[in-house]
Amino acid sequence: MTTVKDLGEQGLLKIFRQYCSNVVGDDAAPMGATLPEHQMVVTTDMLVDGVHFSDRTTSSEDVGWRAAAVNLSDLAAMGAKPWGLVMSVGLTPDTEINWIEGVYRGFSECLRTYGTELVGGDTVRSPMRTLAVTAFGQVPKDNLIQRHTARVGDVIVMTGLHGLSKAGLELLLDQNLEKNKELVQTICRYHQRPKPRFDAIAILHEILNHEHYLQGFPISGMDSSDGLADAIAQICRASHVGAKIYWRSLPIPKIIRNLAGEQALDWVLYGGEDFELVLCMPLPLAKKLVHQLPHAAIIGEIVEGNQIDGIKMQSAFQHF
Amino acid sequence: MTTVKDLGEQGLLKIFRQYCSNVVGDDAAPMGATLPEHQMVVTTDMLVDGVHFSDRTTSSEDVGWRAAAVNLSDLAAMGAKPWGLVMSVGLTPDTEINWIEGVYRGFSECLRTYGTELVGGDTVRSPMRTLAVTAFGQVPKDNLIQRHTARVGDVIVMTGLHGLSKAGLELLLDQNLEKNKELVQTICRYHQRPKPRFDAIAILHEILNHEHYLQGFPISGMDSSDGLADAIAQICRASHVGAKIYWRSLPIPKIIRNLAGEQALDWVLYGGEDFELVLCMPLPLAKKLVHQLPHAAIIGEIVEGNQIDGIKMQSAFQHF
Repeated sequence: MTTVKDLGEQGLLKIFRQYCSNVVGDDAAPMGATLPEHQMVVTTDMLVDGVHFSDRTTSSEDVGWRAAAVNLSDLAAMGAKPWGLVMSVGLTPDTEINWIEGVYRGFSECLRTYGTELVGGDTVRSPMRTLAVTAFGQVPKDNLIQRHTARVGDVIVMTGLHGLSKAGLELLLDQNLEKNKELVQTICRYHQRPKPRFDAIAILHEILNHEHYLQGFPISGMDSSDGLADAIAQICRASHVGAKIYWRSLPIPKIIRNLAGEQALDWVLYGGEDFELVLCMPLPLAKKLVHQLPHAAIIGEIVEGNQIDGIKMQSAFQHF
Repeated sequence: MTTVKDLGEQGLLKIFRQYCSNVVGDDAAPMGATLPEHQMVVTTDMLVDGVHFSDRTTSSEDVGWRAAAVNLSDLAAMGAKPWGLVMSVGLTPDTEINWIEGVYRGFSECLRTYGTELVGGDTVRSPMRTLAVTAFGQVPKDNLIQRHTARVGDVIVMTGLHGLSKAGLELLLDQNLEKNKELVQTICRYHQRPKPRFDAIAILHEILNHEHYLQGFPISGMDSSDGLADAIAQICRASHVGAKIYWRSLPIPKIIRNLAGEQALDWVLYGGEDFELVLCMPLPLAKKLVHQLPHAAIIGEIVEGNQIDGIKMQSAFQHF
């Protein structure tokens, strides 16, 4: 197996350039034009071997896909379209070239899927494999989605099912849990290949462009990367409001009932890493949006106060 | 000493927010407006403890300053003004809070000095302290500086002295080399606090705005982070040209002659990390630029072919 050390920096650079749209190799990369009446948003994430990914559950292609998807999801959560990404990679000298090529391949596949590209990067030696991704997006000035603008009376929409990424992870760790191999594969993909919900943002913008009477209400929200309950709690905290959950409307997929038993609701609320969007908006707009998105649902409403009935906020995502 | 583990993620986030202009804490950070007729450029770098910095030669404030400066220098090298930065930080649980506060302090001090700000970031657990910085800038569309546009007949300008960062590093490693303590301090600062040359870019743009007959010639160039010789070689390779060096015009500072003896020229050519700009442009423009920049010099010209007389390109910057 060829390693990073065998290939050297110039060889690595050659591989990187196969996946990078900026072939000139200047100190910085020029980006395409800004859209009129749009605002730029930017997000960044660092992923460390053994902390955020592991060879045990994740192929190199999936590591690359996820590194792109988690950042793209942050853009979608602001209502933005992707504009470009950069990725810095720290590699141990004994990293196999196959591994880093797989990462670039999965990363690029995700970018292609969502119509954007890798414009620059850096490759350095490190005692631990590390990926640092920064993503830029553009959002129409009036449609910026933020956490702190939820208002009493808004309903809470989730763009898709929750708990499936957790189910996928459990199946990856113990495939004996489920006998239907095809189903196992399908569910594992929810964990391995999260999908940033740019489709939901596009539909939202389309509705707003056609239904003028729905414009002018700020839409609040974020993605559910740290769990559905966490997203609702974060929005409430930032907006100084409470929430009432429509427990009977909260979908619990059958596969999760089967795998998790009594813990099914916990998986849905606290499983995390589903990368759906949790959005607060007036009911008429929510109805139109949910109508056009399979698996989307209105799951609650924003109320006065600072309580969220039935949700316990553990410190599940204390990362240190 | 309080460590990262003692403080936890929420505590770390509080410290981060003291230095970040985006206090809302959304998934992504909104950026200020784009300038008309400007183009965005972006650059990214990863810095790893033990590879790119070390407690032995670098205080935490200087680590932060350098992390900002190396990225800002890449923007200056494209002719751009800074627009904003994001920084992801990987921290070992036993990292002292003092250290990461020092990094943010030095980072912010550099940003303030050059009129820009930290707009977002990420903080994660890592087995090795790691900083990943991405910087955005904007450049007037006609003034983008790239490596591949040097033309035969251009002269080569360096915006300041070379070899001083190498001298500073040697003095940090062995202060007995020089008895004048004040001089030692001054020289060490060249290594610890490199200065991105936005001042040179501003002067260049001013000249171009006033002297219309000098406009319309592409200016080629890059920064000298990997050494003066490397910068000249990279520009020549990208532009498919050679270079003739004016050896008698190449400044060798007296302190370098004293410290390096026979190796003085090697320090100037191959020392690296001076973060000056190496620019190729028509002679009349070069004369005006050099006139306004202390220590700037015209040190050669671009010629046909692919040779650079007197420069040996070692693989000094093979980082793996």
